[in-house]
Amino acid sequence: MVSVSIDELAWTEYRRRVVDERQPVLIPLGALEQHGLHMSMNPDVVIPTAISKAVAQNIKALVAPAFAYGAKSQQKSGGGNHLCGTTSLDGHTLSLALRDVLKEFGRHGARRVAVINGHYENLPFATEGIELAIQELKWSGIEDFRVIIISYWDFVTQDTIKKVFPDEFTGWDVEHGGILETSLMLHLKPELVDMSLAPVQSPAKFPPYTVFPPIPEWTPPSGCLSSPADATEEKGKLLFDVTVEGISTALKQEPLWQPS
Amino acid sequence: MVSVSIDELAWTEYRRRVVDERQPVLIPLGALEQHGLHMSMNPDVVIPTAISKAVAQNIKALVAPAFAYGAKSQQKSGGGNHLCGTTSLDGHTLSLALRDVLKEFGRHGARRVAVINGHYENLPFATEGIELAIQELKWSGIEDFRVIIISYWDFVTQDTIKKVFPDEFTGWDVEHGGILETSLMLHLKPELVDMSLAPVQSPAKFPPYTVFPPIPEWTPPSGCLSSPADATEEKGKLLFDVTVEGISTALKQEPLWQPS
Amino acid sequence: MVSVSIDELAWTEYRRRVVDERQPVLIPLGALEQHGLHMSMNPDVVIPTAISKAVAQNIKALVAPAFAYGAKSQQKSGGGNHLCGTTSLDGHTLSLALRDVLKEFGRHGARRVAVINGHYENLPFATEGIELAIQELKWSGIEDFRVIIISYWDFVTQDTIKKVFPDEFTGWDVEHGGILETSLMLHLKPELVDMSLAPVQSPAKFPPYTVFPPIPEWTPPSGCLSSPADATEEKGKLLFDVTVEGISTALKQEPLWQPS
Amino acid sequence: MVSVSIDELAWTEYRRRVVDERQPVLIPLGALEQHGLHMSMNPDVVIPTAISKAVAQNIKALVAPAFAYGAKSQQKSGGGNHLCGTTSLDGHTLSLALRDVLKEFGRHGARRVAVINGHYENLPFATEGIELAIQELKWSGIEDFRVIIISYWDFVTQDTIKKVFPDEFTGWDVEHGGILETSLMLHLKPELVDMSLAPVQSPAKFPPYTVFPPIPEWTPPSGCLSSPADATEEKGKLLFDVTVEGISTALKQEPLWQPS
Amino acid sequence: MVSVSIDELAWTEYRRRVVDERQPVLIPLGALEQHGLHMSMNPDVVIPTAISKAVAQNIKALVAPAFAYGAKSQQKSGGGNHLCGTTSLDGHTLSLALRDVLKEFGRHGARRVAVINGHYENLPFATEGIELAIQELKWSGIEDFRVIIISYWDFVTQDTIKKVFPDEFTGWDVEHGGILETSLMLHLKPELVDMSLAPVQSPAKFPPYTVFPPIPEWTPPSGCLSSPADATEEKGKLLFDVTVEGISTALKQEPLWQPS
Amino acid sequence: MVSVSIDELAWTEYRRRVVDERQPVLIPLGALEQHGLHMSMNPDVVIPTAISKAVAQNIKALVAPAFAYGAKSQQKSGGGNHLCGTTSLDGHTLSLALRDVLKEFGRHGARRVAVINGHYENLPFATEGIELAIQELKWSGIEDFRVIIISYWDFVTQDTIKKVFPDEFTGWDVEHGGILETSLMLHLKPELVDMSLAPVQSPAKFPPYTVFPPIPEWTPPSGCLSSPADATEEKGKLLFDVTVEGISTALKQEPLWQPS
Repeated sequence: MVSVSIDELAWTEYRRRVVDERQPVLIPLGALEQHGLHMSMNPDVVIPTAISKAVAQNIKALVAPAFAYGAKSQQKSGGGNHLCGTTSLDGHTLSLALRDVLKEFGRHGARRVAVINGHYENLPFATEGIELAIQELKWSGIEDFRVIIISYWDFVTQDTIKKVFPDEFTGWDVEHGGILETSLMLHLKPELVDMSLAPVQSPAKFPPYTVFPPIPEWTPPSGCLSSPADATEEKGKLLFDVTVEGISTALKQEPLWQPS
Repeated sequence: MVSVSIDELAWTEYRRRVVDERQPVLIPLGALEQHGLHMSMNPDVVIPTAISKAVAQNIKALVAPAFAYGAKSQQKSGGGNHLCGTTSLDGHTLSLALRDVLKEFGRHGARRVAVINGHYENLPFATEGIELAIQELKWSGIEDFRVIIISYWDFVTQDTIKKVFPDEFTGWDVEHGGILETSLMLHLKPELVDMSLAPVQSPAKFPPYTVFPPIPEWTPPSGCLSSPADATEEKGKLLFDVTVEGISTALKQEPLWQPS
Repeated sequence: MVSVSIDELAWTEYRRRVVDERQPVLIPLGALEQHGLHMSMNPDVVIPTAISKAVAQNIKALVAPAFAYGAKSQQKSGGGNHLCGTTSLDGHTLSLALRDVLKEFGRHGARRVAVINGHYENLPFATEGIELAIQELKWSGIEDFRVIIISYWDFVTQDTIKKVFPDEFTGWDVEHGGILETSLMLHLKPELVDMSLAPVQSPAKFPPYTVFPPIPEWTPPSGCLSSPADATEEKGKLLFDVTVEGISTALKQEPLWQPS
Repeated sequence: MVSVSIDELAWTEYRRRVVDERQPVLIPLGALEQHGLHMSMNPDVVIPTAISKAVAQNIKALVAPAFAYGAKSQQKSGGGNHLCGTTSLDGHTLSLALRDVLKEFGRHGARRVAVINGHYENLPFATEGIELAIQELKWSGIEDFRVIIISYWDFVTQDTIKKVFPDEFTGWDVEHGGILETSLMLHLKPELVDMSLAPVQSPAKFPPYTVFPPIPEWTPPSGCLSSPADATEEKGKLLFDVTVEGISTALKQEPLWQPS
Repeated sequence: MVSVSIDELAWTEYRRRVVDERQPVLIPLGALEQHGLHMSMNPDVVIPTAISKAVAQNIKALVAPAFAYGAKSQQKSGGGNHLCGTTSLDGHTLSLALRDVLKEFGRHGARRVAVINGHYENLPFATEGIELAIQELKWSGIEDFRVIIISYWDFVTQDTIKKVFPDEFTGWDVEHGGILETSLMLHLKPELVDMSLAPVQSPAKFPPYTVFPPIPEWTPPSGCLSSPADATEEKGKLLFDVTVEGISTALKQEPLWQPS
Repeated sequence: MVSVSIDELAWTEYRRRVVDERQPVLIPLGALEQHGLHMSMNPDVVIPTAISKAVAQNIKALVAPAFAYGAKSQQKSGGGNHLCGTTSLDGHTLSLALRDVLKEFGRHGARRVAVINGHYENLPFATEGIELAIQELKWSGIEDFRVIIISYWDFVTQDTIKKVFPDEFTGWDVEHGGILETSLMLHLKPELVDMSLAPVQSPAKFPPYTVFPPIPEWTPPSGCLSSPADATEEKGKLLFDVTVEGISTALKQEPLWQPS
């Protein structure tokens, strides 16, 4: 039982690590969301979970079970919540669920948590959950509970971007089901990617506004917002290593998040 | 991509199965809860997920990502929510989360869902989630959405009980971290069980009432409510087979749950 | 004004008892639910209210007004919430209502409350209400608020079961509108029972799962889940006396619930 | 079983009346609230319940179980929610509870409901509950559900006011625990009134604003906002008869509330 | 930057006033609600905002941005929420919004707040918001946060009533879109009133109950509940001056609301 | 009464425009948030309100009262919600408020609404409000209700960016209280800007993660995230004109948002 995964530990071992060793807890935050014809619907869970486990090895931390369902997909960042397969929570439900789980870790004795996000739309609702948890933990007399929230792609360096997108980087916003996520999945779960189905398409272009209900024609038929055709396992490894390295370093160095 | 797991399918394959083939969806409902010194904290997720996958193979169904967090542990059925490691949602949060997910499957076109529960305390709050989802789907014009809810242990036959508990069966209520769950884990994830730490203890006895906040002394120090010492992989296989068989048969035969 | 009923006391007398004498408060939790052709829809209110009053006399306690509406009836324990007459709250509403009322008693100065439940489906939602109230009272600086929750039938002894069900006891689950409740009503409110309409039927049998929306055919036409035909006033008195005695003793003896 | 009280009927009799005879349903809305040194804390329940039953006899209607807990007492109408004994729900909880119950009556087949209110502070939150229920019933295809809400004192005629308050009527706002409620209780439940403890005091005077948290000194020590000393059983009978008569007539005559 | 309006101040100037000078904060509470053919839909915002600013000048206070949307209009006080133009929040939403804003002012350091209400239906839901905010601020250790709530018309003196309604005052309840509000608007925003469209009508008469859904015929066609035809700018000035004077004096004198 | 502001119209004129002329409704969404030492706290309200009014003139639309309070400020986009003066709603409260208001406009007969956002953090919670409103309006039989959501800065063209930021554009994320907002305020409300207090500072740099509770030292002392020193009225006019022009054109041309 040397796993970093909380759910794979007996409670006594968990308690030893979180209470005695003051290990922090990482929570991967994902979604069940279509990611194109060529790929499974779980990259937003698989990627932050894998990153969290690698980071946890590096910094001696624990990894909580991933949130398998996330906030509603938005058309310009995830294709939209009208698509078949995409299975989302109301944002408010996500806020409450993360609030509840954070309060529990605080009750156990954890004082440092990092939320490792893999689904763009989760961020604000996860933030509300964090704010609610901190408020309620303070009401319970726990004043020193601190949470870092990270979207893993924010740790991809300029250098790496140049290598992964040698021609042109069109921005994270249309990277849904594109080179970034596909490469990472080729590295982490190649059996869930079928590159023969990878659509060749130019990046989705959207007007500077959003319409509700979504206009299905806005989303490319594949569900991807840019072409994953140039994704490779090598790029995936590069992306994985740089984000794991970056997040590990950040968590080791951020002074206000060190064990008290 | 011949998985039964929704998250491992591309959305087009998922759509083919759920819309064209009218396959039902199974949702494993678990918890992150201490289960004694000798076992990981995920049996309530591992067991219903494995059962769901085996049933899905039998009846041609799909399996949604498991709910990794469940309703608050109660002292007389799970040791209590004061214990370190047990990480729970408010019951209402669970209701909302299941409501949201069910509504999404209904939106996709699914009309038959089975919730496969592995955590006793989930049942009423999951039920409320189902009732809310059905209400709202009706408001959306979807009148024929039907959900079965199953706690897997209700499919253990009298025959099997006699084999698994040759001396005396003290009832499901104190089977927390006991022979049932430990045997199943020995069958499904032996690497997460360490029988050398299995406590030998008599079944927990509780008064016919419950006190809040919980009285820590009521819960045996191990966190188990009965002794897992007699658990074996063979018993686990037996239990697994009989529940998979029973649930598969039930889902194939319940007339009101057949594809419309 | 020597009543034990809070609502029948002037506030000054209530204050004297709850603050000066530190008397505990009992809250009967009921439901408005069909209980067969032969009986009124209020046994879940009448029975725990009568028990609470008798217990209160025994242990010098106060009785709060009963909750007249309860959580949604479930098919295998109460016939189902699709039946005409059954009038239920969402589980979450019940949680909030009990939370509010408990917080009020805590504000008044009460530190020991017993929730005396008469409707099976209330239990988990009442529990959530208790947990929320204790949490919020702690936030308000009230750390020693303790609540016992009791379903009265859990105090029927084996001895009594043998006398009341001389042939065979088929379990509490199908005792809806059966011998237990009918006998108690014959003892407490005979005018609300018409034994000439008592259905003779074998105990309802259900599969080991539940379907939503409910399948009306599953519920016996009477609404009872077992036959009340053998109910008598004598059995009712026996049941009443044994539960009153058992609950009184428990509340007098549970060390952590004694007045601080 | 010729009661008008729903909870005292078997479900089949209830169904006959509400579905076949299209009888309307009256819901008494009360509170558990201090009403002075001389009187029990239940006038807001006792009075509207008695009125509802008498009206139901007159117009052939059904009476639902009273709401025993109401919205938070306000200082200038009920003495304030800081007082010992007063036991209130959050307004939102009351809204949800009434919403749930109204939806249930609509599901049964009732199309005309009258909410008979006995606690001033309930009105707006009950109104929100009614609005929510009507909205959701419409979503369920029930378009003709109509609710009347009545505060019983609004049916006291000018004539009666002159008889009951021969000197001067200081307004309903300070009639908390005063002549109106005390007289009605002397008529309905004389055993719950002790006129020897009735405070002689001039009507409470409040500034034209309200302060939170309440200023305890604003509320007269008795908890009454005006003197009940001139209350008599005769006045109670007069008040009871005039409100029962008025409400019965209104419900019989309001064209939009007649059975469809 | 000598404004009293918080939104027109830089945060440092705001901080100086609220923290260093301990200035109280006034929050105007309004609505977007039809007020007759002759007048804009914003009197419930314009009037309390203007009053708040004048009072703030008098007592050295700050004015927060007005709440532009209020609780649902009721037929007997505002014509009803079925009318075109009237744009309301659920009462619960209003409670939450005011709770949030009050908590923020408490976090900044404000300890005295006055809610200046201009829309009758807001009062109970605003009260619930105040109660929730005070509860949560106490949980955060802020024990001395005090809020006064005022409906401005409660400061119109008997003297002024006689001058403004020389013939007969029919009560505040039917003053919707009548002389009071129209005169005040003629004084404050004459460009938003067109007296040529002022309906001449007798005061609306309602039965002593309310029906839901509203009965459109109950509301006079203009939307006004009494005639504004006798409104004048002079009356408006009189009303404005007397309420500003009265509120200023009250806030300066209420001992429990003075700066701590 | 030729205003485009809904609150300045009589309800009959509003009805004429929204029902007869099928004019769309624009809702400015703002916040009360610190914007540096040199500027008032209302730019997020002032700017989208002014833009909305100008757009409304161009496309014949109506403007609803602005939302004066917005979602909680985040440190990397608005300085953080720990700052004095910043006064925010919980995200969920904002969702409910916008849901309520949108449902009302739908009830009136409006079928096209544009939400014009001025506060970055509002976007996801406003989106949830829109999704909830559309869901509930569908339940009410209104199937053709469409909402566009716009953050005005997304209509600043590349050309304009080059003119406004001749040296280097550091991105919208640190434009809080910087050249964009300050120039617009100099154009729209110069009296609320004091350029002598405009801080000269380099753009705020943040790590690629966020910490909760916020680390005050991360936010520049001024509260601005970039220097407003180069703001001018001319740039403000340029920015205003280009956004008004862009939004007007978009709303006139988006085929799915044209009047039905």
